Amino acid sequence: MNTSPPRLDLTGDPVALTAALVDIASPSHQETAIADALESALRGTVPDEVEVLRYHNNVLARTHRGLGSRVILAGHIDTVPLADNVPHRRGRDAQGRDTLFGCGTVDMKSGLAVYAQVFATLAVADSLRHDLTFIAYEGEEVATEFNGLGHLAEAHTDWLRGDLALLGEPSGGVIEAGCQGSIRLRVRATGTRAHSARSWLGDNAVHRLSPVLGRIAAYTPRDAVELDGCVYREGLNVVRMEAGVANNTVPDDAWFFVNFRFAPDRSSEQAMEHLLDVLAIEGEDNLSYEVDDVAAAAAPGLAAPAARDLVRAVGGRVRAKYGWTDVSRFGQLGIPAVNFGCGDPGYAHKKDEQCPVEQIREVSAVLRRYLTAGTIDGEV
Amino acid sequence: MNTSPPRLDLTGDPVALTAALVDIASPSHQETAIADALESALRGTVPDEVEVLRYHNNVLARTHRGLGSRVILAGHIDTVPLADNVPHRRGRDAQGRDTLFGCGTVDMKSGLAVYAQVFATLAVADSLRHDLTFIAYEGEEVATEFNGLGHLAEAHTDWLRGDLALLGEPSGGVIEAGCQGSIRLRVRATGTRAHSARSWLGDNAVHRLSPVLGRIAAYTPRDAVELDGCVYREGLNVVRMEAGVANNTVPDDAWFFVNFRFAPDRSSEQAMEHLLDVLAIEGEDNLSYEVDDVAAAAAPGLAAPAARDLVRAVGGRVRAKYGWTDVSRFGQLGIPAVNFGCGDPGYAHKKDEQCPVEQIREVSAVLRRYLTAGTIDGEV
Repeated sequence: MNTSPPRLDLTGDPVALTAALVDIASPSHQETAIADALESALRGTVPDEVEVLRYHNNVLARTHRGLGSRVILAGHIDTVPLADNVPHRRGRDAQGRDTLFGCGTVDMKSGLAVYAQVFATLAVADSLRHDLTFIAYEGEEVATEFNGLGHLAEAHTDWLRGDLALLGEPSGGVIEAGCQGSIRLRVRATGTRAHSARSWLGDNAVHRLSPVLGRIAAYTPRDAVELDGCVYREGLNVVRMEAGVANNTVPDDAWFFVNFRFAPDRSSEQAMEHLLDVLAIEGEDNLSYEVDDVAAAAAPGLAAPAARDLVRAVGGRVRAKYGWTDVSRFGQLGIPAVNFGCGDPGYAHKKDEQCPVEQIREVSAVLRRYLTAGTIDGEV
Repeated sequence: MNTSPPRLDLTGDPVALTAALVDIASPSHQETAIADALESALRGTVPDEVEVLRYHNNVLARTHRGLGSRVILAGHIDTVPLADNVPHRRGRDAQGRDTLFGCGTVDMKSGLAVYAQVFATLAVADSLRHDLTFIAYEGEEVATEFNGLGHLAEAHTDWLRGDLALLGEPSGGVIEAGCQGSIRLRVRATGTRAHSARSWLGDNAVHRLSPVLGRIAAYTPRDAVELDGCVYREGLNVVRMEAGVANNTVPDDAWFFVNFRFAPDRSSEQAMEHLLDVLAIEGEDNLSYEVDDVAAAAAPGLAAPAARDLVRAVGGRVRAKYGWTDVSRFGQLGIPAVNFGCGDPGYAHKKDEQCPVEQIREVSAVLRRYLTAGTIDGEV
């Protein structure tokens, strides 16, 4: 029985490589085959002076050429569960464009293919202007405890050194810089249960919670926080609420989840302080909160020299990232990070996931130009 | 095979009759055996001039002696589901009193036994001062569509004629007069779903609902509405609420149930108008309501002559009934109605349901005194 991993051609066409990666099914927790294939292909392609590392199903490769700056090219190798959409199919999209269809085509085996191909072909090229670290990591589509980038940050922080990190998440070929932070609290009111026909014997937990809901509903979030030319926009929302014992009973318990999405000019601590100021429940009887989730924001970091070059390479097409992504993990290590990948993120996690072939070639070309062009003297 | 119903002695000790009724298990929808037993016992006890009627598992008996006023003695024959508490057990309660234990001892086979025994022994007695109608009905512990008293009100309204109705629900030997009404509305807000990281693309249904919750929480219900010497107390409560799509999603739907318990000086229509005034949602975009339940209030009606006698017979021990009960059905027919039964209603629907024997004898004695003493000339 032949158990050797499929052979991947890292130096050929990134479109073909995308298709080959899609055809190695890799839903979360089943990344061994694709990690083996990538590791094997890297070892078979790059010369010995390029270091190849492995930690669980995370595969790294990095140059040590003393180029004075280091760019990280990172992407996750897992996908959401298959939906009868592997192997890939190549055809026309609704606009008639040559397109790859299949699980992972946009999120994010196209970005991964571009990064792997650029790394493999530039690692020993004279034209390379930055040392490179390629990271293919597992467990991004599931709970944060499984995130391979998180595992690397814990176990091998030095592997993540760099001046700028690019994540190949779908961004339509535009730079999405930084990311907003997110805090989710569970706010709870307690009271005393009673028959609703004798409600004065009880203490209605929903009624106690109501003024807090009112403050959230009345809150006006900041809608234009500019950082490095990126405009962030905050939001404060109740995303879930629940109460009820029986339809004739005063409820003794009521709670909601409130989610604060905050711009990168706030630290997580500052964001928490602001949120608690808005809720104004501290010291109130029968009202309490617990922290359900805190994810730090990441500053766009586009003022860093390596980032300025990238912005130029994409012709200035930069926008703020609102959703939380793994760029925040680099932010916490002090490394500016951006999303830069292929295709429309609206197709991520969809059965009809797809990516136009032209986007893959374009992102590949921009990335190659950026990594080989270097800085232009005199520009700021 | 002997399929004849158990023999009941309607003229003996009401405590023994209570025990015998408990031993004929009769959870809702399984009332045939107990209805058969009651019908058979009535036909075997009272002379022909006392009319005995049957409709489904509802058994009626009534006198036609031309006494100028008619008192209805009504009780349901069904119980909540058994909880390993039938047949009955006789023992001591926590306070050392001689007590009957078992399903239905308090809700309401003790009241039913007292009413049946009083009816059977007074129907042809010279001392009787009011004509009597005894009603044993099915389906009180389940949805209103199964309620036997409701079926009688629809199909045989004339069977329910009377000047005062007594319901043998547990009331601790005190008269509980009238009952409060109840309206339950489902209030709903709709919005637009969005990722909470881009919440400005959405419209949060919880936030839209919040001001309505605020008005309910801020509402001060009337706490002392006096009618015929009974003091009613209203209540307005959110009893259930729900919203939530996912923990990172602005919810597009949120709703709550609000329950208004209102005093008998309001008709159902007036109560609805008042409730809608408080909610103030009519004409508001994206806010709507639907009526989940309306149960009319019943005035205490203690000013009626037959009721005044009863109040005297219990030594003036009268209180308002807050919860909704079947007395409201009589109220809708224009018949004053009260609850008057044995034991602590707190034991209703409990596994350790119980009723002190002394309460059964006391309620029986009061009822007998009331029905035989007549009015006292000159009293108002």
